[in-house]
Amino acid sequence: MAMNASQSECVEACQACATACLANVVAMLGKKSKNACPKCCLECAAICTLCVQAMTIDAKFASDYCRLCAQVCKWCADECAAHEHDHCQKCAEACRKCAEACQAMAA
Amino acid sequence: MAMNASQSECVEACQACATACLANVVAMLGKKSKNACPKCCLECAAICTLCVQAMTIDAKFASDYCRLCAQVCKWCADECAAHEHDHCQKCAEACRKCAEACQAMAA
Amino acid sequence: MAMNASQSECVEACQACATACLANVVAMLGKKSKNACPKCCLECAAICTLCVQAMTIDAKFASDYCRLCAQVCKWCADECAAHEHDHCQKCAEACRKCAEACQAMAA
Amino acid sequence: MAMNASQSECVEACQACATACLANVVAMLGKKSKNACPKCCLECAAICTLCVQAMTIDAKFASDYCRLCAQVCKWCADECAAHEHDHCQKCAEACRKCAEACQAMAA
Repeated sequence: MAMNASQSECVEACQACATACLANVVAMLGKKSKNACPKCCLECAAICTLCVQAMTIDAKFASDYCRLCAQVCKWCADECAAHEHDHCQKCAEACRKCAEACQAMAA
Repeated sequence: MAMNASQSECVEACQACATACLANVVAMLGKKSKNACPKCCLECAAICTLCVQAMTIDAKFASDYCRLCAQVCKWCADECAAHEHDHCQKCAEACRKCAEACQAMAA
Repeated sequence: MAMNASQSECVEACQACATACLANVVAMLGKKSKNACPKCCLECAAICTLCVQAMTIDAKFASDYCRLCAQVCKWCADECAAHEHDHCQKCAEACRKCAEACQAMAA
Repeated sequence: MAMNASQSECVEACQACATACLANVVAMLGKKSKNACPKCCLECAAICTLCVQAMTIDAKFASDYCRLCAQVCKWCADECAAHEHDHCQKCAEACRKCAEACQAMAA
């Protein structure tokens, strides 16, 4: 059950991404958006939370969740990066790190 | 482990409230709000989801979660009801039903 | 944002599966198991919960989550069905229904 | 929206407790238990996850969730500490830290 180093790293990246995304949803409330942000953040927080649980329980399909999560994170990073707000830029950065960690985990 | 009638009813009310609230968050994105809606909906969806899990596992503190959930639902219902959008009115209605079911469960 | 009939049906199947799975985890605690049940139930509850959220927010990758969920549900149904306990049989049935609904949603 | 130091600390304690608890549920599957462990862990993981979300979105009732979470964590710590397995001892330790952080947050 003990996680190896890359699993622990991926769990932390997913936890950080989930909170950055959820915080960004709140920060964007009432603000106009020209793209999918912060709707993408709501989706990204949900799949990141699943990945944390999946790695924690050593789930059979953990690689599949992480592969899909990497896709969602890349998309969310692109959407948020297009907004100049600090909170969107920070969210994009958390998404990029999480995409990398999930991609590595899925490989 | 089998749930009795009022537990089942409360689980259903919480599930319905969680989805109504989450849908309302998305429907409100980019719209101006004069009050806590849809931030209250994000919070309400989270505690409703906890209550569903708590009743499902016959949790020791289930009554406490439900008591708190009833408070959150009442607040969220008031906030959403102040907005004329159909989706806010529907959300307020789901919150009111859930507040009642949770109050009964907590008693 | 309003869901169509098959989305609503799939949300309900996922909600029912998530609660059946979580209840089965608790019912199996302390009991010997010859296979992946109830560990599969813990995983299945998590992906079902994600699917509920994804359909509720009309997520971009909803079909992908549902496709993966159908796989998890089929596996979980097979594992639980191999146990004679009533709770395992009920869980297997909820998983099978959810697999069908998710497969239809993913198509 | 930016969290202060004690909020960040509490979020981290809740994240660590949620994963320790979920891992302990899996580690205990099929093992006999003389008390509420690992059922308490399932409940504790759920309320900890709620607290993470609540602090992240600066929820109106965050203090109330944290106060309740502190109670659940204390109970779960006592249950797990009564088991000699390494995973139960580690879980108890994570629960104790989380109870302290949540108590401080609720104050």
